[in-house]
Amino acid sequence: MLPSRITVLAGGVGGARFLSAVRAWARIHSPSTRITAIVNTGDDMWHVGLRITPDLDSIMYALAGVNDTERGWGRVGESERVSAELREWGAGWPWFTLGDLDLGAHIARSAWLREGVPLSSIVPRLTARWDLGVELLPATDDEVATWVRIDDPEASAAGEPVERTVHFQEWWTRYRAKVVTHGFERRGLAGSSPAAGVLDAIENADVVLLAPSNPVVSIGTILDIPGIHAALQATPAPVVGVSPIIGGAVVRGMADACLEVIGVPTSAAAVARLLGARGGAVDAVAGTAHPAREAGAQGVLDAWLVDEVDADAVAGLEAEGIRSAAVPLWLRDEPTGVQLVSDALALATS
Amino acid sequence: MLPSRITVLAGGVGGARFLSAVRAWARIHSPSTRITAIVNTGDDMWHVGLRITPDLDSIMYALAGVNDTERGWGRVGESERVSAELREWGAGWPWFTLGDLDLGAHIARSAWLREGVPLSSIVPRLTARWDLGVELLPATDDEVATWVRIDDPEASAAGEPVERTVHFQEWWTRYRAKVVTHGFERRGLAGSSPAAGVLDAIENADVVLLAPSNPVVSIGTILDIPGIHAALQATPAPVVGVSPIIGGAVVRGMADACLEVIGVPTSAAAVARLLGARGGAVDAVAGTAHPAREAGAQGVLDAWLVDEVDADAVAGLEAEGIRSAAVPLWLRDEPTGVQLVSDALALATS
Repeated sequence: MLPSRITVLAGGVGGARFLSAVRAWARIHSPSTRITAIVNTGDDMWHVGLRITPDLDSIMYALAGVNDTERGWGRVGESERVSAELREWGAGWPWFTLGDLDLGAHIARSAWLREGVPLSSIVPRLTARWDLGVELLPATDDEVATWVRIDDPEASAAGEPVERTVHFQEWWTRYRAKVVTHGFERRGLAGSSPAAGVLDAIENADVVLLAPSNPVVSIGTILDIPGIHAALQATPAPVVGVSPIIGGAVVRGMADACLEVIGVPTSAAAVARLLGARGGAVDAVAGTAHPAREAGAQGVLDAWLVDEVDADAVAGLEAEGIRSAAVPLWLRDEPTGVQLVSDALALATS
Repeated sequence: MLPSRITVLAGGVGGARFLSAVRAWARIHSPSTRITAIVNTGDDMWHVGLRITPDLDSIMYALAGVNDTERGWGRVGESERVSAELREWGAGWPWFTLGDLDLGAHIARSAWLREGVPLSSIVPRLTARWDLGVELLPATDDEVATWVRIDDPEASAAGEPVERTVHFQEWWTRYRAKVVTHGFERRGLAGSSPAAGVLDAIENADVVLLAPSNPVVSIGTILDIPGIHAALQATPAPVVGVSPIIGGAVVRGMADACLEVIGVPTSAAAVARLLGARGGAVDAVAGTAHPAREAGAQGVLDAWLVDEVDADAVAGLEAEGIRSAAVPLWLRDEPTGVQLVSDALALATS
């Protein structure tokens, strides 16, 4: 039976591509299927007085068809006239560009937040302009942020390493993760709660899919918002993940760099073990401040899709209680995307 | 003797033109003369989470030579890509456009204000990029705003007049002052104080000039900030005003509409009497919430320049204790501007 509701946990650009595939699958096979995305907000930040929500925006723009597919991020036809002015005044980070079209969303969002409107009510205001075919929910309305403990490269160049804690955006966009990195901190996590609709979307889904997004800072942050991990363990829906790692390398983004920081191998099987089998223990990861993945915690996965090149991981994962299959994971175009979603749904119900 | 320090009270576009003339005069006649502008902030407002300072920006852009002289406001080469996005989302006023280049200043200013930096410290950060030749001081760091009591044209169209109080920007930009208007309110005025440097600029000037700016909402607001009116009365420097009215019509802007609201005739002489002779009583204006121009208040003017077409006003004003002269007031180009400033300085010391 075709699912009437699919809920997807997703990060930014990788999540956007996967959600486009889910939407394409639904348009072909099951137009009435409701698709809900629970989107990572752990990369969000205030910057020059504006609230930036990179993953929500990446998904919104991609589903709206206004994303820049060539550059890989932001709006198509973007310009940077405002950012050039800000740079003249030394306002903001010189290595962090706010596109002009993008700033429209940032300014509107920030103004509404300051009026007291929660992010989960702002997202539908922003998306209403387009027919996305996917309902976007921020994982939380609370401000949760990933910070990274690094050796400051400039300060450390002179002699003894100087530790500094930077926002995830600085680690990734400024340093490209190419600095000595000691670990992640998740600020605001303990006091956060799922946004309106999030738990319902998990509890009342027919299937929950984990997009091939960063398992540490995207999927990981969503899981660690108090209540979400437990909801995934409790939902009657099967939970199926898609590996973000193919043949020991990341498909896109920064999963490899993040896995390295927490000491997890860059492999499809290791990521599955990090998420853990539902009812089974997860691989403990020391010092990650990931409450859902501390020693003794239980996993969330019923099933896991790896790429064909990782077929030899299937037997081991199955033995550990994670139903697995090796299928083509590369999202080359719409047909490969639709096929991947069909494969994920088949594994969910097998 | 040439003045070593000239202080100018100024509103927006008219103030900018006059300040350009003062700067041109100094470059020709007295390059070491220090020019300080005390700029109206009563039109400032928060809009979609951004602090807008129209008069400060108009003056900054004009003195920097980056203003749009054709359109008469804003930056030259301006675009409105961000505003178009905001409109799609229904954020902000559809009749109020924020230019992209302009937004750079708004975003930087707002971020710094939220960090606790006072406006008077932000202005030099913004102006440092250019060699303005004029030091700009906001009249106050406090939030003072002019509001206008009107009959709402849409709500009143159906029957009984419906009164509404709107920000000055809405009255002027949206309604072009063409609505039934009952009066002005000055919010935040009583608790405000002059920004750092303002009183010093008045007390230690060799001459104080009042630009031909709006006498009600620009010069008027500056005067009514507690302490400024008294400083003008106490300063040893002569205080010389330039009429914003020529031949019964406003030179530029909205002085006529504002004078009408407070029941003052649109004439060069009436504006002089509104400002009042130093040591003499001002014409009382009922219901304006202008503490400096209530019955019994004293004026600030030593001298007043009117245009040649208003020469017949000179004798009457002189009889009332305001030294006056009729000279060409139209700022057509740099020579006419330099001549006007020479005339003002001559009248100051005559």
